[in-house]
Amino acid sequence: MAVTTRRKSFGSDNHAAAHPEVVQAIAAANIGDARPYGADEWTDAAAAQLRDAFGAAGAFFVFNGTAANVLGVSLLLRPFDAVICAETSHLNVDECGATERILGNKLLTLATPDGKLTPDLIKSRLTGRGDEHRAQARVVEIAQVTELGTCYSLTELRDIAHLCKAEGLYLYIDGARLSNAAAYLGCELADLAACADVLSFGGTKNGAVAAEAVIVMREELLADVPFHRKQQMQLGSKMRFVSAQFSALLEDKLWLRSAQHANAMAARLAAGITGLPGISIRYEVQSNAVFAALSQERVDALRREWTFYPWEQSESVVRWMTAFDTTADDVDAFITAIRASGEN
Amino acid sequence: MAVTTRRKSFGSDNHAAAHPEVVQAIAAANIGDARPYGADEWTDAAAAQLRDAFGAAGAFFVFNGTAANVLGVSLLLRPFDAVICAETSHLNVDECGATERILGNKLLTLATPDGKLTPDLIKSRLTGRGDEHRAQARVVEIAQVTELGTCYSLTELRDIAHLCKAEGLYLYIDGARLSNAAAYLGCELADLAACADVLSFGGTKNGAVAAEAVIVMREELLADVPFHRKQQMQLGSKMRFVSAQFSALLEDKLWLRSAQHANAMAARLAAGITGLPGISIRYEVQSNAVFAALSQERVDALRREWTFYPWEQSESVVRWMTAFDTTADDVDAFITAIRASGEN
Amino acid sequence: MAVTTRRKSFGSDNHAAAHPEVVQAIAAANIGDARPYGADEWTDAAAAQLRDAFGAAGAFFVFNGTAANVLGVSLLLRPFDAVICAETSHLNVDECGATERILGNKLLTLATPDGKLTPDLIKSRLTGRGDEHRAQARVVEIAQVTELGTCYSLTELRDIAHLCKAEGLYLYIDGARLSNAAAYLGCELADLAACADVLSFGGTKNGAVAAEAVIVMREELLADVPFHRKQQMQLGSKMRFVSAQFSALLEDKLWLRSAQHANAMAARLAAGITGLPGISIRYEVQSNAVFAALSQERVDALRREWTFYPWEQSESVVRWMTAFDTTADDVDAFITAIRASGEN
Amino acid sequence: MAVTTRRKSFGSDNHAAAHPEVVQAIAAANIGDARPYGADEWTDAAAAQLRDAFGAAGAFFVFNGTAANVLGVSLLLRPFDAVICAETSHLNVDECGATERILGNKLLTLATPDGKLTPDLIKSRLTGRGDEHRAQARVVEIAQVTELGTCYSLTELRDIAHLCKAEGLYLYIDGARLSNAAAYLGCELADLAACADVLSFGGTKNGAVAAEAVIVMREELLADVPFHRKQQMQLGSKMRFVSAQFSALLEDKLWLRSAQHANAMAARLAAGITGLPGISIRYEVQSNAVFAALSQERVDALRREWTFYPWEQSESVVRWMTAFDTTADDVDAFITAIRASGEN
Repeated sequence: MAVTTRRKSFGSDNHAAAHPEVVQAIAAANIGDARPYGADEWTDAAAAQLRDAFGAAGAFFVFNGTAANVLGVSLLLRPFDAVICAETSHLNVDECGATERILGNKLLTLATPDGKLTPDLIKSRLTGRGDEHRAQARVVEIAQVTELGTCYSLTELRDIAHLCKAEGLYLYIDGARLSNAAAYLGCELADLAACADVLSFGGTKNGAVAAEAVIVMREELLADVPFHRKQQMQLGSKMRFVSAQFSALLEDKLWLRSAQHANAMAARLAAGITGLPGISIRYEVQSNAVFAALSQERVDALRREWTFYPWEQSESVVRWMTAFDTTADDVDAFITAIRASGEN
Repeated sequence: MAVTTRRKSFGSDNHAAAHPEVVQAIAAANIGDARPYGADEWTDAAAAQLRDAFGAAGAFFVFNGTAANVLGVSLLLRPFDAVICAETSHLNVDECGATERILGNKLLTLATPDGKLTPDLIKSRLTGRGDEHRAQARVVEIAQVTELGTCYSLTELRDIAHLCKAEGLYLYIDGARLSNAAAYLGCELADLAACADVLSFGGTKNGAVAAEAVIVMREELLADVPFHRKQQMQLGSKMRFVSAQFSALLEDKLWLRSAQHANAMAARLAAGITGLPGISIRYEVQSNAVFAALSQERVDALRREWTFYPWEQSESVVRWMTAFDTTADDVDAFITAIRASGEN
Repeated sequence: MAVTTRRKSFGSDNHAAAHPEVVQAIAAANIGDARPYGADEWTDAAAAQLRDAFGAAGAFFVFNGTAANVLGVSLLLRPFDAVICAETSHLNVDECGATERILGNKLLTLATPDGKLTPDLIKSRLTGRGDEHRAQARVVEIAQVTELGTCYSLTELRDIAHLCKAEGLYLYIDGARLSNAAAYLGCELADLAACADVLSFGGTKNGAVAAEAVIVMREELLADVPFHRKQQMQLGSKMRFVSAQFSALLEDKLWLRSAQHANAMAARLAAGITGLPGISIRYEVQSNAVFAALSQERVDALRREWTFYPWEQSESVVRWMTAFDTTADDVDAFITAIRASGEN
Repeated sequence: MAVTTRRKSFGSDNHAAAHPEVVQAIAAANIGDARPYGADEWTDAAAAQLRDAFGAAGAFFVFNGTAANVLGVSLLLRPFDAVICAETSHLNVDECGATERILGNKLLTLATPDGKLTPDLIKSRLTGRGDEHRAQARVVEIAQVTELGTCYSLTELRDIAHLCKAEGLYLYIDGARLSNAAAYLGCELADLAACADVLSFGGTKNGAVAAEAVIVMREELLADVPFHRKQQMQLGSKMRFVSAQFSALLEDKLWLRSAQHANAMAARLAAGITGLPGISIRYEVQSNAVFAALSQERVDALRREWTFYPWEQSESVVRWMTAFDTTADDVDAFITAIRASGEN
């Protein structure tokens, strides 16, 4: 079967294939019998590696990012609790209302300039606590990297974590692109995790076939996780094939190398278009995404040859994403095309 | 990493590894970019193959069998509807209450001698229809193969389908082991599907890594499926890697050859223990499972060396399952051990 | 507007009007302003009276019996927990699947000869505990009086409570007709409540307009009740009018006198038909209901003049209920009619 | 028991008692037996009166406003649908997340200057339709009167209804204070209802004890309502006592006279404080509420003697509500106190 698109897609990091080492790990795990449902040696090993890397109490595998988020916050919520999150968050926008449907919990959304919550924004949502008429704010959900490609600094994260502790809130981090954040910040995964009660660690957007982990930082939450995961339809029977993907990503920090590369490609793209007439970069480029505003005519022209998506139609902002397998040549060819789109 | 168990497991068909051709198909799909979320060529191809094989309106991929069941029945239920099913059904027993939690619908269970519903049993649950105090029977759920390894004959299936039509009920078939049923009955997948409104087609227990399909037989149900699937957290971004598994299973009917082999191994096991003193086979062997009653001492002795599970502790019934990769030598060695367990 | 039926209904205790003292209490509460949502003096007083009568930590008012049951068990359940209950229970049969829909929890039903669970029956449902594939038994739900008009003795209740404690289960009692049970057993409400973790106390079937209470026996459950109740749409704004009904029922034990009377009328009815040819009483008469088997022809003849309902169509069993306002004359006239129905 | 507050409360219209005619209607319905669950003559009569008044297909009674809203929108929603509503709506703010919990549906909220949605605001939420990643906008929910005491004009309502039809959306109107809107606009209830697919009609805030109606305008929705209502725990057994309240409210348009009076009292209050130094009225007074901004010191002083609530603490805005039983003397005494609070 032929490759789907000739030119490298800048549509999303999930347009990319899987990293060859990940697929090799799947093949290598394909030997003989194994105990099912995660009672196998591959899962033991990968979970131990993740607990080490994150300083975590436990690590649990699921199939996709939506499930990681829903399972993650479900560990922290009573039926009448609400989740404070950014209006632009994946949880709010891109999961077809899964939190409301699967968990029944309310989202309390906040408009942000850059996808990032702040202690002050969070405080503005802490009204009506103790009032039976109001869903009770209980979890703060942030994404690191955010949907707008921005990263919280460690200081910003710690300030939010500090507020959460002071206010009796839990902090959940959607880490679908946590690797890119760690690469950008130059920090350890454990530095990020130390701020959270529960977080996710995404594999799929960083070279896995389909592998996400829910990282649990609090011992007392562990016992219920298997039941929540099974009930939420995320318990794989041949789990070794998910676990093996994580072991591949953790081997010699493949996750970090891949994320660093993807970030570097986004930075190269941003550098290449900075100063071009008629184009402005919308948010600071702190991961593997570049959000740019340019005329609808240029967007239309570029999309005839290249794959990427509009972000805000009303303002003709587009999102360009790089992946572990985006090459410098891919980026340069795209820059040339962008440049050319402005020349008639 | 070493093989987990030295002796072939008779614990479940999901102890087995994946079929090498399935893993090769994953590797072969790992080339370049693809549109995500099932808008790729692999998914187009596999879905078309499944529509052909089943005479179906549509085919949709999910990650595991619990999800296939929940998504499948969700297409057919209003909030106040109930599902009639066997007390022993996977939906009722083995999914941690997912139907109740994820969908909010009630199960109306029926005791059966052999895991199979009958028109008369179903009729016994059709009380209180039109009465606002009662959850309304709307879907009949059966498994083909059942949890007890038995198969409905085509006549039995058609009788149930006939009752459902007459009573305004929908029929959902849990086909986690549909391949084994088709192999046993010597019929086409389309013959089975023709009785159902929605059914699942399991790949995982028949050699896939993690791949299940929801097969939709009614055109008018199609439009809502993508939303239900996404909301139920079963939409994979790199779906080509699931689709490719199905294409491998469908290639030269690998699904059928694997199921025929697994069934033959169960038949060989059953034949080998028939007539042995102190052992009785509990249900007709019509797929890849043998349920046997033998003394707790022999069970304990055998489980020291072999992997399998008790089924009904109270009566010391055990379940022995074969898989696509169970060999005649595996079976013969196990028969020898079973025989020996009775000799002291 | 004319009275709906000329002859006293034996259909249900909710066919009856309200006790005049209850309606007077509503009228008496209709003076000036009051704080809403239960922060009023009437609610303070009634809740205090109920806490005293039950030896309870708290008492919370809701609008109907289904809501009392759903709110009651919701205080005790995690998302993946299940409720063990009788197949004939109101929770299972008569609430249109509210537990599954509103709470998302599974019911584990048990067939019983007389509507009553026993420790042995409950134990038979305690399989799969700790297994993530199974919904986890957590609450035992019994009704006192049961749907079949039978009562648990205090010894039977205590045996169940003892098992629950030993097994880490909670006990919830559906007390829609708890008054009739206390009247039958000659015990205090507190004797019944001492066995439970949470229970309901029904007013509506015993002379109220619409008033049910959820009685909470464990201090640590109290804090969340207001949120559950509000979210479950059971918080009345002018709650004084519900609370006043309970105060009327508690005044000079009107609840007890009414229940004693209703029970006595059922006993009179049972005595009057005992020994009649062609009629047999199905369950022991231990409250205000008589379940009788008689020929379908007699049932049909009686229903042309009298109001009552079939219970099990297949066996031509009917239910005859008395209420606080059923008179001896009503019963005697009905006995005469029953007798006459057998005479041609 | 003494009256709870000496001075008339301006806290909410639900601080008021019930109208004497409503309580008399309850007493008058307290005669003999009636068929339960709404199969009685009182319910037939009240539902017919409401169908006439609204030009409706059906009218169904529930216990409170939260339940009316949840039942109302539930008739219009598929599992993956969302409700567009004002950020300030009762549905969003004051129901403890009931829509999310009980129905599982997402709310798409909109900031408004005055509590009112507009076609343009609604259009801004119509992104992602047909995209499986997004909850699908399906219902527009507006309140008439809004939570800010404002009313939609008939033209504004019709414009929204027009947009809904054009866009394939349903319109639900929260009519907890619909009487006050009809009184303000001088229109028929049917004029308001003609814009909606489903709406509620509140009794409790306008003199009832506890009575709300869900008014269904589309014939094809009727069949499922009884099941939804029962499952949502809103089916009263002695429903005549709710229905009788509505008949009392409809008798000689008591609902309209009461609402006109309450509105007039709010207008009198607004007139009495207009032009006072240090006080500004925040929203147009179009019903029975006055929102006023005044210094926190004055608020604190007034609240020592009078009952009312802060609305927005941050800006020291308060809400003053009148009821059917607020007298001109009550208002004048309150105006005097407000005036005096500014004089030191």
